[in-house]
Amino acid sequence: MSEPITFYFDFSSPYSYLASERIDELAAKYDRRVKWRPVMLGAAFKASGMPLLVTIPLKGEYSKRDFDRSARFMGIPYKFPPKFPLSSLAAARAYYWLHGQDCARAREFAHAVFRAYWMDGRDISETPVVLAIAGALGLEVGACETAIATPEIKERVKQETDSAIAQGMFGAPYFMVDGEPFWGADRLPQIEKWLQTGGF
Amino acid sequence: MSEPITFYFDFSSPYSYLASERIDELAAKYDRRVKWRPVMLGAAFKASGMPLLVTIPLKGEYSKRDFDRSARFMGIPYKFPPKFPLSSLAAARAYYWLHGQDCARAREFAHAVFRAYWMDGRDISETPVVLAIAGALGLEVGACETAIATPEIKERVKQETDSAIAQGMFGAPYFMVDGEPFWGADRLPQIEKWLQTGGF
Repeated sequence: MSEPITFYFDFSSPYSYLASERIDELAAKYDRRVKWRPVMLGAAFKASGMPLLVTIPLKGEYSKRDFDRSARFMGIPYKFPPKFPLSSLAAARAYYWLHGQDCARAREFAHAVFRAYWMDGRDISETPVVLAIAGALGLEVGACETAIATPEIKERVKQETDSAIAQGMFGAPYFMVDGEPFWGADRLPQIEKWLQTGGF
Repeated sequence: MSEPITFYFDFSSPYSYLASERIDELAAKYDRRVKWRPVMLGAAFKASGMPLLVTIPLKGEYSKRDFDRSARFMGIPYKFPPKFPLSSLAAARAYYWLHGQDCARAREFAHAVFRAYWMDGRDISETPVVLAIAGALGLEVGACETAIATPEIKERVKQETDSAIAQGMFGAPYFMVDGEPFWGADRLPQIEKWLQTGGF
């Protein structure tokens, strides 16, 4: 098995959600694993000097239409949430805590957070909502709540975000495949060709 | 035959060039024609407040890699030109003059301008270069030179650009398909599905 793919994402990013529903299956076809790494996209926007997509004149309006149409195109249930944008910090912290315990459960949790926000419109910026999602998966809610307030976990989110930016991340989803960066859910076909051919 | 697709582009935009090599063939599969409309992308950037893509920190560097990789992915010859960005105004004016005479020749000319810039690296911002491209196609160079200095032709470029922005254009290529806007060469698969299904 070759090197894993790194999947940088922000739970609050619609295209990250779309990619999250397809990347594992795509990678598995080519015998690859995927490392999931939630990051704070706001820091990347700061590094690149870019405003939030939906606030850009003309482009912002188009984008909302494109989120929705891209979801239909990919066959993924999707609904623009009532609260947007929002901070995904508590969810990212909970992810890294879980990840330190059990990678597979962390993956399940990440899917549950994405779907809670992008299918059910829940406010994942609220710690109680994040804890409820964890609880529904049978995870230890008390331990999670304690963990996400620790300096180690807070630092981890920062480190992963810095590392992604150091690798050129300016938006999400952002994938690193054998040293090659790919940005956007719409680059999954190029990633597939890359995996198929060993680079093109 | 249903309504034609409108293809707004700027000769100086790499993704417009990539789209220009595929859109007619794609449309023809579904019995559609394509109206080619060169515009001034700088005006759209001004309307949306966006800087030139390649100048954006992180995103700019990624973009150059993505231009090249997207060309390879689509199987289209491509070479980043020595002069970039540049003004495509003379070429756009020449296009509309030709278009008033003969649509098919104008299409040929548009392909020749795109390829002169994106394959051969010629400086299409220079009127003599544009005229040489026209001349190589057997067009009347003298008449072209006179025409592109007329107020009517200058005004036409402005009108088409304003019309594109009024329809939401903020980047190129920008397509209008049955009232639905699509932005980017990477949306050709969505356009194909749209044409196939009559909207999805």
